[in-house]
Amino acid sequence: MANTETLNRFFSYVDQNQDHYVARLREAVAIPSVSADADHREDVFRMGNWLIELFKQLNISYEAADVGTQMLDGKTLKLPPILLGTYGNDPNKKTILVYGHYDVQPALIEDGWSSEPWKLTEDSIGRLVGRGSSDDKGPIIGWLNAIEAHQKAGIEFPVNLKICFEGMEESGSEGLDDLILREANRYFKDVDAVCISDNYWLGVTKPCLTYGLRGISYFKVTVSGPGRDLHSGVFGGTVYEPMTDLIILFSKLVTPDGKILIPGINDDVAELTNEEKETYKSIDFKLHELQSAIESQTNLFDNEIQTLQARWRYPSLSIHGIEGAFSAPGAKTVLPCKVSGKFSIRSVPNMDPDKITSCVEKFLKEEFAKLGSKNKLNVECLHGAKSWVSSPNHWNFVAAAEAVEKVFNCKPDMTREGGSIPVTLTFQDALNKNVLLLPMGRGDDGAHSTNEKLDRFNYIQGTKLLGTYLHEVAAAKST
Amino acid sequence: MANTETLNRFFSYVDQNQDHYVARLREAVAIPSVSADADHREDVFRMGNWLIELFKQLNISYEAADVGTQMLDGKTLKLPPILLGTYGNDPNKKTILVYGHYDVQPALIEDGWSSEPWKLTEDSIGRLVGRGSSDDKGPIIGWLNAIEAHQKAGIEFPVNLKICFEGMEESGSEGLDDLILREANRYFKDVDAVCISDNYWLGVTKPCLTYGLRGISYFKVTVSGPGRDLHSGVFGGTVYEPMTDLIILFSKLVTPDGKILIPGINDDVAELTNEEKETYKSIDFKLHELQSAIESQTNLFDNEIQTLQARWRYPSLSIHGIEGAFSAPGAKTVLPCKVSGKFSIRSVPNMDPDKITSCVEKFLKEEFAKLGSKNKLNVECLHGAKSWVSSPNHWNFVAAAEAVEKVFNCKPDMTREGGSIPVTLTFQDALNKNVLLLPMGRGDDGAHSTNEKLDRFNYIQGTKLLGTYLHEVAAAKST
Repeated sequence: MANTETLNRFFSYVDQNQDHYVARLREAVAIPSVSADADHREDVFRMGNWLIELFKQLNISYEAADVGTQMLDGKTLKLPPILLGTYGNDPNKKTILVYGHYDVQPALIEDGWSSEPWKLTEDSIGRLVGRGSSDDKGPIIGWLNAIEAHQKAGIEFPVNLKICFEGMEESGSEGLDDLILREANRYFKDVDAVCISDNYWLGVTKPCLTYGLRGISYFKVTVSGPGRDLHSGVFGGTVYEPMTDLIILFSKLVTPDGKILIPGINDDVAELTNEEKETYKSIDFKLHELQSAIESQTNLFDNEIQTLQARWRYPSLSIHGIEGAFSAPGAKTVLPCKVSGKFSIRSVPNMDPDKITSCVEKFLKEEFAKLGSKNKLNVECLHGAKSWVSSPNHWNFVAAAEAVEKVFNCKPDMTREGGSIPVTLTFQDALNKNVLLLPMGRGDDGAHSTNEKLDRFNYIQGTKLLGTYLHEVAAAKST
Repeated sequence: MANTETLNRFFSYVDQNQDHYVARLREAVAIPSVSADADHREDVFRMGNWLIELFKQLNISYEAADVGTQMLDGKTLKLPPILLGTYGNDPNKKTILVYGHYDVQPALIEDGWSSEPWKLTEDSIGRLVGRGSSDDKGPIIGWLNAIEAHQKAGIEFPVNLKICFEGMEESGSEGLDDLILREANRYFKDVDAVCISDNYWLGVTKPCLTYGLRGISYFKVTVSGPGRDLHSGVFGGTVYEPMTDLIILFSKLVTPDGKILIPGINDDVAELTNEEKETYKSIDFKLHELQSAIESQTNLFDNEIQTLQARWRYPSLSIHGIEGAFSAPGAKTVLPCKVSGKFSIRSVPNMDPDKITSCVEKFLKEEFAKLGSKNKLNVECLHGAKSWVSSPNHWNFVAAAEAVEKVFNCKPDMTREGGSIPVTLTFQDALNKNVLLLPMGRGDDGAHSTNEKLDRFNYIQGTKLLGTYLHEVAAAKST
């Protein structure tokens, strides 16, 4: 257990300097580091340099790893550097790797922002509104604020810190996996545990630790026939129409109430144990929070536990759309010659991506054969990522739970997430160390939406939490 | 029957001046009168003025009807004038109204044209390639060439001609229906019959007269649930997904082999009579022409007559696409909150658009109720146009058939079309006169495609055909 007096000095310094931290976040938000837009690539580099300046001020030694180039909008662009930082290398301390990202989602005030997205604006109830405030500039700056606070308050830093901040997270983390594998036995070789602060509380009042993520298998199903798009007046009724075939196939994937109909898909879902069942009881989550998030009352279940289990520990199948068909407003009488439907399956332990793909292919081929169509079918898995689940009893989690209690005076919820954060699994597999997800923001931060925000409360308490976690992890028995 | 010597003089003049007519068409094609593109609106007006100059040269009196404005790409644009022309007003002659359009489809050489689309280019086998050559600049200029030839060759013009050339046909004919209704008892009041040259031969070797068109009822079916698009990782498995509902509904509309499954839709289809059956026997059409047009072998029927009947005299249902879902290349894990599927039914005598709409609405509402979804359904008919069928025994058709024999030495095919040309029905209903479709171009002209062409043969023989038709119609017993 960390020393209470030490922590109180740290907390007190953070509280006194909160306006300084907000100003720092404001500087970062002002740099529109949108990785998905070639026109903003320079800004992503600017954001990387801004962090390097801060590394220098804080005596963090660093490497800015060049991970090559990518093609975007027909241009060859340099990928932004992955910033590797080292703060401290005392062989008597644990080494903790922290990950975050300095790129952000696109944002235009015309999309419906209530204030300029690149200008951090604090509203009357202390919400810091701006693109990247919560995802993920607040958390990465939180780590740096914590280092600075220790320096300024004269507190010994409790661990050796390894930093990995990338600039391509919102665009598929290009170059990251290769770098992690390459650095596993070099830059990252002494790492004892990993902490990622890039997700959210489940709701808006209670912190959580996240120990599981669903995987994803994303499919593109193409039906093609005619060599070119046809006019439905001239050809309707005389040809096998690819859209008809695709729609019939897709109608066989899932029921309106979410049951996946593909044989074999549900076979490997891990049983719900009594221990796991227990963890759901104390979780701070109300159906009205779901309804507020989806802005409707179209929830499938009328109770919280079924809802959370459906999100976290059971697979789901969603149909995303169709490429190649008419998708604009208005009326067009085209008979599309080649259409590609997209759907994905969110997977859970112990489903295997390869088996998912083979079940999907087999089923769709059999169903297509039943149609008796002269069109052609092609099924592709565009990407597959395994689900991830960690042990909430590992010392890394126990330390984080202790830190939550110190900062927030409550026990954290133990949560999983329905989405995937692929780097989690990469770190776990490449380093063979425990990975913890320790969020700073709230469930309603709107990370990829308009009016993204981070509450001042979460930013300041979150800075304390990240620092306290390092003290607790240092004090933890790592056996 | 028209006087053979007179016709021969007319033919001879046309043959001798064919290069002049091609040069005239080249001038017209050089004006990119694309009605769908705000940036080309000025060119549509230029094209109108080019025709007005020709009217003046040919002593055609005219009115350029101002039909107001439209909103396009966020701009308010003046609609191009509908050119009303009058050539002759001898009370002893019949009055024939001819319709055509001077706007064209868009064209970019990058789309795959083998030559500059706005430069009429003649290839080694006499194909005049250029946007608008066949649709519909060749035919409208054909009428004017015929007038000029009569003047230059000193042949009395056989009828009074009323002209109606619009500049918005490729963009919904905005303003046209209102004008026709308004002018029915004024400008068009003495019209005895109508001739539209804006469609195509069935194949590539034999002229045709067209006496029927299918109607269309176009539906937009919207399923909505959540108030905003959701992330499938976070919400997949916990909400009723609009895409799932829509796909299941659409899978119940039609079978892969084209049978419409909506109860009531097939009830009012007119029986195939023996007389009609007979007309199919002589029609110049081969399955390989269909396969060449669709660039595949995915035809539903293995014989010509079933294929033509399916195109012309039976209804069909085509699914066009989905608005609001993910339609771009690549993978996006969106769970769309509101999706609008579009499909249309091509209708035939004696189906009624209102009954089609009520059958569709009833069926979709019943099927949606079966899904047990909490989402909302909305069904709209975006537009409905009745099918059209005329009598091939009317003197207007008999005269045209006679003209075909004079110019081409063969009897025309009597055809219908699978698509709709709404102005046909408007003229018939507003004027209560027989309407004939008399095409100039061939089935492979590619009116809305790259490398649109009009064969020099069709242009020159077509000019003769239009003139000869006027002679035959003048000679016809109109009782």
